[in-house]
Amino acid sequence: MSLRSHETIPVEIGLADVEAAATRLAPWAHRTPVLTSTTLNERSGLDVYLKCENFQRVGAFKFRGAMNALLQLDEERRFHGVVTHSSGNHAQALALAGRLLGVPVTIVMPRTAPAVKMAATEGYGARIVFCEPTLAAREAAVAAEMREHHLSLIHPYNDWDVIAGQGTAALELLDQVGRLDAVIVPVGGGGLASGTAIVAKGRAPAIHVIGAEPAAADDARRSLETGSIQPSGDPRTIADGLRTSLGARTFAVISRHVDEIVTATDDELIEATRFVWERLKIVIEPSSAVVVAPLLRGGLSVPGERVGIILSGGNVDVGPFFDLLSKRH
Amino acid sequence: MSLRSHETIPVEIGLADVEAAATRLAPWAHRTPVLTSTTLNERSGLDVYLKCENFQRVGAFKFRGAMNALLQLDEERRFHGVVTHSSGNHAQALALAGRLLGVPVTIVMPRTAPAVKMAATEGYGARIVFCEPTLAAREAAVAAEMREHHLSLIHPYNDWDVIAGQGTAALELLDQVGRLDAVIVPVGGGGLASGTAIVAKGRAPAIHVIGAEPAAADDARRSLETGSIQPSGDPRTIADGLRTSLGARTFAVISRHVDEIVTATDDELIEATRFVWERLKIVIEPSSAVVVAPLLRGGLSVPGERVGIILSGGNVDVGPFFDLLSKRH
Repeated sequence: MSLRSHETIPVEIGLADVEAAATRLAPWAHRTPVLTSTTLNERSGLDVYLKCENFQRVGAFKFRGAMNALLQLDEERRFHGVVTHSSGNHAQALALAGRLLGVPVTIVMPRTAPAVKMAATEGYGARIVFCEPTLAAREAAVAAEMREHHLSLIHPYNDWDVIAGQGTAALELLDQVGRLDAVIVPVGGGGLASGTAIVAKGRAPAIHVIGAEPAAADDARRSLETGSIQPSGDPRTIADGLRTSLGARTFAVISRHVDEIVTATDDELIEATRFVWERLKIVIEPSSAVVVAPLLRGGLSVPGERVGIILSGGNVDVGPFFDLLSKRH
Repeated sequence: MSLRSHETIPVEIGLADVEAAATRLAPWAHRTPVLTSTTLNERSGLDVYLKCENFQRVGAFKFRGAMNALLQLDEERRFHGVVTHSSGNHAQALALAGRLLGVPVTIVMPRTAPAVKMAATEGYGARIVFCEPTLAAREAAVAAEMREHHLSLIHPYNDWDVIAGQGTAALELLDQVGRLDAVIVPVGGGGLASGTAIVAKGRAPAIHVIGAEPAAADDARRSLETGSIQPSGDPRTIADGLRTSLGARTFAVISRHVDEIVTATDDELIEATRFVWERLKIVIEPSSAVVVAPLLRGGLSVPGERVGIILSGGNVDVGPFFDLLSKRH
């Protein structure tokens, strides 16, 4: 299926919208640090700047977009509340944003979602509605919630306010490091990649914008090649945050502003995750490693040495490790 | 056994020595970042500043002391080389410092040391000499190396140059955060605690200096209570970096400049390590968690809200976690 009707929608936001989002988010989101690593620089032959969104609230960049979207709702919509479908970081991000602003949040989740994700989302005070684990069931459940409870949909990525919010990470990164020759950003549904590309090209068109995705979920690469949104299907990859397809809005931005898509196999993702834990001493989730793997593999063609990468999140279940640690001890 | 003859040795270094060490180390050691965490602040009711020595070269503060000691050796001693006994972070730190300066490094290690530690130390180009896993065998092996190969001993902690080097972490921390009401530092052999205490009291005598150690290896607490060095014996604790007893020099500093010793059980150490991994998204070793556990437990009596903690290192074997991850995938 190719969604040709969506291909040519205009890009409705620009750098100024991301800058406005940054002002809006300043009291709420963390200005996350940028780290550097001698080891990573030596391995890659580049000067790499790591924007640590794993240190963001709820452990992922998703808080930026969710909060920006809620902050732009009018009073009536805030009163009725919002709904989204997600079993991942967007669910927790929206739940926390709602709690902070007093906006009721409903999350539609497949019955098969991990218990730990449900608990985390409920822990932020959101109401969970379960559905069968199919796209049709999910969309029906969201539509029913919107209709019956007058809820506003906050889409995980195909939403201009969400995209503008996600772009604030790249805005901070550029402010923090001054100048970049290239930026590498993960591509799942494309919200973070779109926001990042808008900022990079808006600030300095020469910045080479590289989207990174799992080889097993390379729908963005295929979409750019064919010129129309290619669905990702139900890909098997350890990068659980990057299994989704692009939306009409994110495809519109990415096809205009992303220069190149690179991919990494799951073996490379596991190796890169381990590299970051062992050598850089920070916890990232395998989805984040998609921007590190190309640096370890080498052969990236970038127009200069200063490369920013956005580490999207750090939510990974470390329970099994600590079970082992307790037992062995 | 109490080492009364050592109790009254003078403290031969002060703030100026640590400041000189900082200048000496500037081209070599990382100026590690200070992180903050809303979650940790909420849990502890304090403003906590985390000095991330897990991001230091070799993944631990130990590089500071080892490098400072090597940089102060004269040409002849550098030519012959140095020796130490360690199966932990000091071994790797000295090995790297030696490689950077072209100084031959010999490490005496018990035959029972983990293969991964041996490999890491050899990876930095050090020569390893094995001994039986007893104190007597270790001391005999070191003495033999010193005699036969004219090697200089770089003790892991009972050495003024090493102590001055370790103090540079606290110096940076104070420069980075401006002012602190208290600082919490792990106590193993006491090198980091001594350097930190010299800096804190040298800069602002009102800073409350808290040493933290495992409940199962509370030799520093007992040493301060009895007024003489109490050996730690062969304690069973997951905090493998904190099993050693104080030396004469570190006891001299700690008994003068450390205001209080707090302890944490191994269960608390595992819980605190997990908290830091899961919520703060950084990798620390269980020994580092000894400064976090008292904050999670609460009840700390500190004269103000601004508390600095020194996260000493992040060297922990994550292999079993990634074996699980690969298998489950």
